[in-house]
Amino acid sequence: MTNATFYHAGCPVCVAAEQQLAQALDTSRYQLEVVHLGQEKQRISEAETAGVSSVPALVLNGQPFHINFGASIADLKS
Amino acid sequence: MTNATFYHAGCPVCVAAEQQLAQALDTSRYQLEVVHLGQEKQRISEAETAGVSSVPALVLNGQPFHINFGASIADLKS
Repeated sequence: MTNATFYHAGCPVCVAAEQQLAQALDTSRYQLEVVHLGQEKQRISEAETAGVSSVPALVLNGQPFHINFGASIADLKS
Repeated sequence: MTNATFYHAGCPVCVAAEQQLAQALDTSRYQLEVVHLGQEKQRISEAETAGVSSVPALVLNGQPFHINFGASIADLKS
């Protein structure tokens, strides 16, 4: 199984990306974890280390994919 | 089956998104079509109508998701 981590902040753009794109992943090959960075601020540094600069973003196999634009990571820190 | 159309232009960012993200879709639920807009310029207007403004982008069920940034649609027209 490949790890897939979907980082979001509850924004409308995030919700659409989660419902449409993250949920479209093949769950027989990918183990999906959904992380709300607004509620789990202690995981922001983990997202940044993976190269995530905005949400929503999907990290597949360690590689970050930013999906449309909801909010920047910097804005989530404030 | 839900239609999934991946628009790209052959750029490195596009190739990574296709190999990692587009290929992660559940093919039992999604029918994936890959469109190279640099080679199939006649389909640029179709992508624009779907709301695609840059590549790589994945249109799921008519909804556009821009994945990172490779090139703008405007640049592909020139």
